[in-house]
Amino acid sequence: MSVFTRAFAGVFLLALLLPFSAQAEDLPSWNDGKSKQAIVDFVTKVTDEKNADFVKPEDRIAVFDNDGTLWSEQPYYFQLGFALDRIKALAPEHPEWKETEPFKSVLAGDLKGMAASGEKGLVELMMATHAGMTTDSFNTIVTDWFAASKHPKTGKPYNEMTFLPMRELLDYLRANGFKTFIVSGGGVEFMRPITEHAYGIPPEQVVGSTIATEYALVDGEPVLNRLPKIDFIDDGAGKPVGINKFIGRRPIFAAGNSDGDYEMLRWVTGGKPNSFGLIVHHTDAAREYAYDRESHFGKLNKAMDEADQRNWLLVDMKNDWKKIYAFEAP
Amino acid sequence: MSVFTRAFAGVFLLALLLPFSAQAEDLPSWNDGKSKQAIVDFVTKVTDEKNADFVKPEDRIAVFDNDGTLWSEQPYYFQLGFALDRIKALAPEHPEWKETEPFKSVLAGDLKGMAASGEKGLVELMMATHAGMTTDSFNTIVTDWFAASKHPKTGKPYNEMTFLPMRELLDYLRANGFKTFIVSGGGVEFMRPITEHAYGIPPEQVVGSTIATEYALVDGEPVLNRLPKIDFIDDGAGKPVGINKFIGRRPIFAAGNSDGDYEMLRWVTGGKPNSFGLIVHHTDAAREYAYDRESHFGKLNKAMDEADQRNWLLVDMKNDWKKIYAFEAP
Repeated sequence: MSVFTRAFAGVFLLALLLPFSAQAEDLPSWNDGKSKQAIVDFVTKVTDEKNADFVKPEDRIAVFDNDGTLWSEQPYYFQLGFALDRIKALAPEHPEWKETEPFKSVLAGDLKGMAASGEKGLVELMMATHAGMTTDSFNTIVTDWFAASKHPKTGKPYNEMTFLPMRELLDYLRANGFKTFIVSGGGVEFMRPITEHAYGIPPEQVVGSTIATEYALVDGEPVLNRLPKIDFIDDGAGKPVGINKFIGRRPIFAAGNSDGDYEMLRWVTGGKPNSFGLIVHHTDAAREYAYDRESHFGKLNKAMDEADQRNWLLVDMKNDWKKIYAFEAP
Repeated sequence: MSVFTRAFAGVFLLALLLPFSAQAEDLPSWNDGKSKQAIVDFVTKVTDEKNADFVKPEDRIAVFDNDGTLWSEQPYYFQLGFALDRIKALAPEHPEWKETEPFKSVLAGDLKGMAASGEKGLVELMMATHAGMTTDSFNTIVTDWFAASKHPKTGKPYNEMTFLPMRELLDYLRANGFKTFIVSGGGVEFMRPITEHAYGIPPEQVVGSTIATEYALVDGEPVLNRLPKIDFIDDGAGKPVGINKFIGRRPIFAAGNSDGDYEMLRWVTGGKPNSFGLIVHHTDAAREYAYDRESHFGKLNKAMDEADQRNWLLVDMKNDWKKIYAFEAP
């Protein structure tokens, strides 16, 4: 049997299994209703060869924001929690931080004081904690942090703070021939160590903000050093740029939760005739958090105003989702 | 049947087909001998769960340079051919080019005169032909050029100037669970329109040099404009940087043909214990071209000197390959 015949046989066997995929048991943590139906209708339509809106498998690209879309982003972005923990861990090596903002405020646990140093201060925090080591070392630091740290409200590991209905949505799309990507403002090397386990998304399908790296030989061994210099910010109008740069084709499905996803939603739903935009609206103060127009993290204003007009689905976490997290009691 | 069960069944059925994959009929355009055997031995070893050198499928990442590795790069990089053709096509809109280098030399067909303007001139040519339009427009321009243009020596379309044995190698690796990527100094948006058809590699698995793009609304429709500004050069020490940025894990297989691939080969074969480095050596002046240390395009010097020491396979095109191009008479 030639390679081609084998590959063809594999695809054929998989295809036999696919017609079962849009069944009622999909998306089990979604309540029946308008939101779930809209998703199922879209997927059913674009995967049905007899439908005029059929989309070939290779064009079934779906992009997901991460913070606030696939996992929680309150009381602060988890990556900021990582940076603050790292400042504390590194403080003994930096006695000068006791007298220098924004480090002084961070070490005193004064987040308002930290915020007073503005974007410049935030960049300093990121560079002090995210640069100055090899990529391999940073991977280890991040992996260790996820293993050791807990969310301040739930007491669960951060990488269990993922939204079960969104993980089901990722599974459902993949079962229907979609290729799923993360497109996040978060640092790509902060996410990659956990996305395969958390979402079934491999490192090469994670698009995010990057800092510059440089190839070097250390004791004759090749390494990549992380430099204190921002390379790319994958947020706002940077998201379509990142999608084009890393993925190279226009997705047909985009999910976000904030105005930082606005341009991505426009880019994805303004392209091919069959496309779907989804916004996760944080409406559940009891099980998660309730916030939108006034939030420091994940502000949702403009994108919500235009959701109706642009036919973007506004998912109501409180009413659309049976469960938020997998660890909730059944 | 749950999504999980279905996915599992698919993988299982595919797995049943895989044990047939390392057979004699693989790599049919490779002559039996040391080179072919080294490739088959490596793939057999890393795919055998009982072997100490087994590598899990998700870590089977293979990266390939493009120019001179997957297709020809003589008498000049095909992308340069594209740029020169575009200069001629755009000349009527730019009467000033008749008096300005490097455009004047290009329009006069004087490649030596063009070369005299150095790297600065080359960048000017690239920016004049690769920027100033939307990404969608550029995709169309590239696609049309490939459909209309012919290689100066063979008279074949450029996208048929691919090396059949290397396409078989890509197929063979994929049949054995590898995920294949292009990592090229060429422009990513020059390659992406053709890589799926030419190599079975989708756009999102093509890493290359990029120019800056900017999101904008034109008549209310979102577009990405290509700006006359280099964003990233994916060559030399930039290749490990690009691999880390776009792919996010260290490959175990790398193929190149020039010193521009040296750092990539070091990075890939200096990492995990099981890895493979391959260099395509252009030794066939009759069927393709013969060049190495002195070539303007694809100079191979340092990487060849160190090939033995680093256990990189030097593929001898003349003696290792039965055929170079698919269009050759059998």
